[in-house]
Amino acid sequence: MNTPRNTAILLMHCPDQQGIVAAVTDFLYNNNGNILNLDQHVDQDIRHFFMRVEWELDGFGIPEQKIDDFFGTLIGNKFGMHWQLHFSRKKPRMAIFVSKMSHCLYDILQRYMSGEWSVEIPLILGNHNTMQSIAERFGIPFHYFEITAKNKAAQEAAQIALLREKEIDFMVLARYMQILSSEFVQTFPNRIINIHHSFLPAFKGARPYHSAYERGVKIIGATGHYVTADLDEGPIIAQDVTHVSHRDSIEDMVRKGKDLEKVVLSEAIWLELQHKVLPYGNKTVIFD
Amino acid sequence: MNTPRNTAILLMHCPDQQGIVAAVTDFLYNNNGNILNLDQHVDQDIRHFFMRVEWELDGFGIPEQKIDDFFGTLIGNKFGMHWQLHFSRKKPRMAIFVSKMSHCLYDILQRYMSGEWSVEIPLILGNHNTMQSIAERFGIPFHYFEITAKNKAAQEAAQIALLREKEIDFMVLARYMQILSSEFVQTFPNRIINIHHSFLPAFKGARPYHSAYERGVKIIGATGHYVTADLDEGPIIAQDVTHVSHRDSIEDMVRKGKDLEKVVLSEAIWLELQHKVLPYGNKTVIFD
Amino acid sequence: MNTPRNTAILLMHCPDQQGIVAAVTDFLYNNNGNILNLDQHVDQDIRHFFMRVEWELDGFGIPEQKIDDFFGTLIGNKFGMHWQLHFSRKKPRMAIFVSKMSHCLYDILQRYMSGEWSVEIPLILGNHNTMQSIAERFGIPFHYFEITAKNKAAQEAAQIALLREKEIDFMVLARYMQILSSEFVQTFPNRIINIHHSFLPAFKGARPYHSAYERGVKIIGATGHYVTADLDEGPIIAQDVTHVSHRDSIEDMVRKGKDLEKVVLSEAIWLELQHKVLPYGNKTVIFD
Amino acid sequence: MNTPRNTAILLMHCPDQQGIVAAVTDFLYNNNGNILNLDQHVDQDIRHFFMRVEWELDGFGIPEQKIDDFFGTLIGNKFGMHWQLHFSRKKPRMAIFVSKMSHCLYDILQRYMSGEWSVEIPLILGNHNTMQSIAERFGIPFHYFEITAKNKAAQEAAQIALLREKEIDFMVLARYMQILSSEFVQTFPNRIINIHHSFLPAFKGARPYHSAYERGVKIIGATGHYVTADLDEGPIIAQDVTHVSHRDSIEDMVRKGKDLEKVVLSEAIWLELQHKVLPYGNKTVIFD
Repeated sequence: MNTPRNTAILLMHCPDQQGIVAAVTDFLYNNNGNILNLDQHVDQDIRHFFMRVEWELDGFGIPEQKIDDFFGTLIGNKFGMHWQLHFSRKKPRMAIFVSKMSHCLYDILQRYMSGEWSVEIPLILGNHNTMQSIAERFGIPFHYFEITAKNKAAQEAAQIALLREKEIDFMVLARYMQILSSEFVQTFPNRIINIHHSFLPAFKGARPYHSAYERGVKIIGATGHYVTADLDEGPIIAQDVTHVSHRDSIEDMVRKGKDLEKVVLSEAIWLELQHKVLPYGNKTVIFD
Repeated sequence: MNTPRNTAILLMHCPDQQGIVAAVTDFLYNNNGNILNLDQHVDQDIRHFFMRVEWELDGFGIPEQKIDDFFGTLIGNKFGMHWQLHFSRKKPRMAIFVSKMSHCLYDILQRYMSGEWSVEIPLILGNHNTMQSIAERFGIPFHYFEITAKNKAAQEAAQIALLREKEIDFMVLARYMQILSSEFVQTFPNRIINIHHSFLPAFKGARPYHSAYERGVKIIGATGHYVTADLDEGPIIAQDVTHVSHRDSIEDMVRKGKDLEKVVLSEAIWLELQHKVLPYGNKTVIFD
Repeated sequence: MNTPRNTAILLMHCPDQQGIVAAVTDFLYNNNGNILNLDQHVDQDIRHFFMRVEWELDGFGIPEQKIDDFFGTLIGNKFGMHWQLHFSRKKPRMAIFVSKMSHCLYDILQRYMSGEWSVEIPLILGNHNTMQSIAERFGIPFHYFEITAKNKAAQEAAQIALLREKEIDFMVLARYMQILSSEFVQTFPNRIINIHHSFLPAFKGARPYHSAYERGVKIIGATGHYVTADLDEGPIIAQDVTHVSHRDSIEDMVRKGKDLEKVVLSEAIWLELQHKVLPYGNKTVIFD
Repeated sequence: MNTPRNTAILLMHCPDQQGIVAAVTDFLYNNNGNILNLDQHVDQDIRHFFMRVEWELDGFGIPEQKIDDFFGTLIGNKFGMHWQLHFSRKKPRMAIFVSKMSHCLYDILQRYMSGEWSVEIPLILGNHNTMQSIAERFGIPFHYFEITAKNKAAQEAAQIALLREKEIDFMVLARYMQILSSEFVQTFPNRIINIHHSFLPAFKGARPYHSAYERGVKIIGATGHYVTADLDEGPIIAQDVTHVSHRDSIEDMVRKGKDLEKVVLSEAIWLELQHKVLPYGNKTVIFD
């Protein structure tokens, strides 16, 4: 799956109708496109259609820059679709937001440096400068935005300008301990991935391990999700849990939870990089 | 662990102090008791001590019926302990409450019939009579208590009388779809085990699979817990989860969830039968 | 997913070629077939194509009894396909083989009785008669085939005759502790599902929990697979594991393993009943 | 658990006899030692006793440097024990062996740098120099030992000398792709922790993901274990698995497996650092 490919990927959704798959696959076949993966899903409750299709560009009859127009004209508009077109050779540009904890950051950087992921990381942003030395060690520009109640709006505006200048495709909050304003979030709909340190919807908000300890649960978890204006309520991309017992202090839960957090966050990023996540409403379709 | 043994089991807890383990193990050693298992735990936050110790009765110097008195006089009272004494040869007497679903009931009865558990099941109680034929097929008396808003207090009083007459040690709510009154619950503190079909504290109350589906979670779970007067808030004994995806309809979640429910409930019952659960406050220590 | 549907399901595989999906979906679309699910997979190593497609029969333009012929003539033969056609309203007929243990049997029967599965169980076969009373309690004919070294060939011939007479679609070995002969197995290729009580390929053959205990593993597992002439080497359908520790005796492992065995076996059966398993070579594609 | 403590830890095992727990806890109590944790286990099959006890040193009546002698004279020798004495304030000294892959190394270094672990890492050894720049980035001396068939014995002798000079307590093979000689291994019994990229005993030796792919398994795993002279046969400390499907290529399995490898290896190291692993024969007791 993660070998260098020269493929195009279409993510699409629309009200369910007869003939969608036939129309899309005819479009590809008639233009000499070899399908590598096709996965579709119909949500029967809302009669809505979702599909991801990936095909080889070598030999495909439509030039890359015209595919979007041709697909829209011939297929997408006809079925009332929303669609996204991606190319596997284009590396997504990802920004990382950090505060004081390093476990998710290192996990991301190790995958980036070792070539496990096809991604560019043009910058790391911090509301503390604790992670600056790590960023520099990896040769990635670090931007320190100290946030106070007073300067928050201005700092977020500066962040947005910077993210646009750097042509960032999506952002990752790697245990970023600062709530983004609604304005910021709505500037980047479904383009900010957060890791929350509990199995949502349980233990929303601050200090979930303390709450888990208080409640005496026997599992703890982590949730990777898109950020929306409602805190910890956005579409869930990935979740996992681990078992705990009465022997685990809050500190033990924090330690065990970090392993979940980094792995679940990186799983969510991986899915995003592969263009395998299709959000709709407050949920996601994951084409795994 | 589950071979027939002739052992005594002490569960105890008290404020943490020096010398507790030495005192208890001296008590056993001085009376020729061979310890098979000893597990202790100190909750550092509240400086509270918990212990479970199991020893062989063959050759033990104190007659069975006097152990409780001797232990209390020599050890328990000195340290301000709460303790429970159990004997492995005494089969606990368990009542099962059911409504319309059979998966947990069959799971329990299979273990009972095959000798996996050392337990007696003198009766099954239902607020519907749907499970009556199953109970009869297994030769267990079924008691039908139809519950209405009007007769609830009287029916619960009748249930309590019956449970006392049958000398029930603890009860299991095997997907019993009727909320017990505070009065009923407080009559049997930490003696009623319920299975809730979500990973608590998420999705408390009715229709958790519907709520899970609406939220778009990627895991579903089940929780075995003691029933308290606060709905779905009692001490948790066991929890587990399984992964779901957008492909899973509510019906799929219900189907997958049933497997969790029955296994988690039976795990909680197993721990109870082995006298491995020590509730304190709203949590449990599980001596596994 | 498990609501009564009136659908047709095609499972197909063939060497990968351009235009397969388009051809199949055109075939369905041109005959007014509404696709509910389509999942395809290309094994890039062997350039082989696999697909499962399910569509609504109501309004479909080709009569049920002619679909196989039409599909073969128009599509299947052209692409050199192997295909299977199933109808969701036809209940598969399943035979269960048992020996002395009841946990998998009860698990299957509970699902059958409660309507969780759409299946017919015309008979249960035992090489011991221990399970006869359970079969009778559920009203299912029990056939006792005592197997000795001397009578094995004759008894298997009688079993085959009985299975054919009862028009059995597939068989389940629910902890059946008797090795089937190559002749028997080859009579029903990929139509016999076994549960092995380890995570294959570890601990093949007899007494896997004893071997697991000896080796000091920290996980134990169970594997549902098709039976082939090579013992415990057939295509794997489903696997799961649970954690164990030094505290677990062999008896504890056996007890914990039973929960895995029944759930994994029932998962494999569920997939088979949904026509979601496509074996090829010694592997399976699972259209989940 | 991971707060700075000033405690002593005794790990002990001996043939099971009456009075061991009483003798040890009396010894501590009589010398004013406050027990924080006590966990014991009796292997009933071999009638062997295992125990870990941790107590506070502040106020303990025996000076640190005399505890070992006093315990041995008063308790250990009397019961025929093997025991180890550790002090929580003494940071273990750990050497890391690497080859070309960075995921386990980064995972270890992140925990080290962030203070999650109380450990010293005086050196990293590589049979390739690929990881040298990473080691230097973290300020840890890197020693490059190129290994050929011809120089292996000499290089291992040099490694042993270096490890002794640096007073290394134990070694970690962080995906070290070079088989250690029996002589090397036997120089450090139960002091070398390896991560093997399969759920042992399945897929021993080279290229386990390729073997897993060929076999068509539905789970892959990783195993942390002590190295013995028999390849991949040493005592297992920790294991975990993750689910895979036909959609996973070998490359996908490798990618998913890396997450298991690093988390399982770090779990094994954590247990070692906490002195919670007691090997005996070819198994381990894990005092978790």
